[in-house]
Amino acid sequence: MKLKSPYLVKPHTRIRLHTLPTADTGPYQSEPSANAALVKHRADLARLQEVFYASSRKALLIVLEGMDTAGKDGTIRHIFSGVNPQGCNVSSFKVPTPLEASHDFLWRAHAAVPPRGMIGIFNRSHYEDVLAPRVHKNISRKTMETHLEDINEFEAMLTDNHVVILKFFLHISRDEQARRLQSRIDTPDKHWKLSEADIHERRYWPAYMDAYNRLLSTTSHKHAPWFIIPSDHKWYRNVAISAILVDVLEGLKLTYPTPTLDASTIKL
Amino acid sequence: MKLKSPYLVKPHTRIRLHTLPTADTGPYQSEPSANAALVKHRADLARLQEVFYASSRKALLIVLEGMDTAGKDGTIRHIFSGVNPQGCNVSSFKVPTPLEASHDFLWRAHAAVPPRGMIGIFNRSHYEDVLAPRVHKNISRKTMETHLEDINEFEAMLTDNHVVILKFFLHISRDEQARRLQSRIDTPDKHWKLSEADIHERRYWPAYMDAYNRLLSTTSHKHAPWFIIPSDHKWYRNVAISAILVDVLEGLKLTYPTPTLDASTIKL
Repeated sequence: MKLKSPYLVKPHTRIRLHTLPTADTGPYQSEPSANAALVKHRADLARLQEVFYASSRKALLIVLEGMDTAGKDGTIRHIFSGVNPQGCNVSSFKVPTPLEASHDFLWRAHAAVPPRGMIGIFNRSHYEDVLAPRVHKNISRKTMETHLEDINEFEAMLTDNHVVILKFFLHISRDEQARRLQSRIDTPDKHWKLSEADIHERRYWPAYMDAYNRLLSTTSHKHAPWFIIPSDHKWYRNVAISAILVDVLEGLKLTYPTPTLDASTIKL
Repeated sequence: MKLKSPYLVKPHTRIRLHTLPTADTGPYQSEPSANAALVKHRADLARLQEVFYASSRKALLIVLEGMDTAGKDGTIRHIFSGVNPQGCNVSSFKVPTPLEASHDFLWRAHAAVPPRGMIGIFNRSHYEDVLAPRVHKNISRKTMETHLEDINEFEAMLTDNHVVILKFFLHISRDEQARRLQSRIDTPDKHWKLSEADIHERRYWPAYMDAYNRLLSTTSHKHAPWFIIPSDHKWYRNVAISAILVDVLEGLKLTYPTPTLDASTIKL
């Protein structure tokens, strides 16, 4: 994968999230121009997904991580509405069920990895099982490091086996999170999205940033890169992510498969 | 479910597919007017799916059946591109794998039934495991009847448990199938969709119609109805199916859930 993005985390870089932009808007001055680009990217994705599915040579795994309200759901809705749902599958990773918790932490993620031809989106991911436990001190720093090593091995194995992995950290400021939570509080139709847990977790912001810093610094690789996307502006987040997806899919240069039978000999 | 559609199969009606229209276009004279309606239905579905997901009270299972080239893939692409993929999952039922075949025939279907809040689309379905085996005389007529009874019990159980079931038979004429296969033969980019099996299965058209007649006559119920959709015109098929989906989803009168916490007491 050849990747050129200002948001790419180069392998073995020490990441300090508080030094990285959350409100950047790249080349776009305003929402309308970014939305015009997004419309084009969406059409590109629909086209590219069709040949991706037909060729069935690769699988694409998209990991979305970020704090509550960072926009993981919105990213999926805005970028992937338009993609044929037959070729696209979303897995949401919540608090592990008893069955999931009785397995190793990669078990449920492995089961959800997309097969060839499919785009799989992880709304939260296997990284979640390192983050929250570390923030709440349910695992030691050493166990966290072991888990991150396990993740590196796991993702390397996947990419050795036809899976293309792209990981996006949706980077918002703590103030922007406050604004978004307030907007949910102020909008009755959004109350169902509010939970005690979200409000509670917000207090652990600095501990989450520490954990994310560690994670982003150690698990970005050429074969499974992280991108830290400025996400205070939802419209910029959408266009920035969709641009990378189009770029990567174009770069795969996939083609429709060679037919298994000679069409000229077929008699109906 | 209150349903009024000319394509609804009333329970215990003897269906003879060759007497039913394949090229009907309902109230639409032409493709452009039907497409305008489809655009509206798609927007309606996107809106209705959001509240369906938020309310998480019901699951929606959509079964698509029909002969090869009847348009199952196209129906999914045209109607559900636009729906948030996070709330929508497509399961394709192909020739059973050894693991699937070592289980009862409803095992793989049951595992794929959507959970509450989700729309699950079956591209082919548990009905497939009755059809092809019967057509090729791998099961007796009696076993087929037993299987159809099993399906009735299975679907009744699902609808007793918050699953809304809608089943669509995409009805094309044998001539239309010939045209579509010919078009795949004539279009190099579509050769990958051609398989020896499709061409071969076409010879069994009458046996398939017999099996479908039996199946449609015995498994349409108020709680899990079949619709026989005239599908020679793809644009009419899309608008006819999407109209029923919008109707049913509107009829559920779902609302955003009552919040679990009092928004007015929240302090950030």
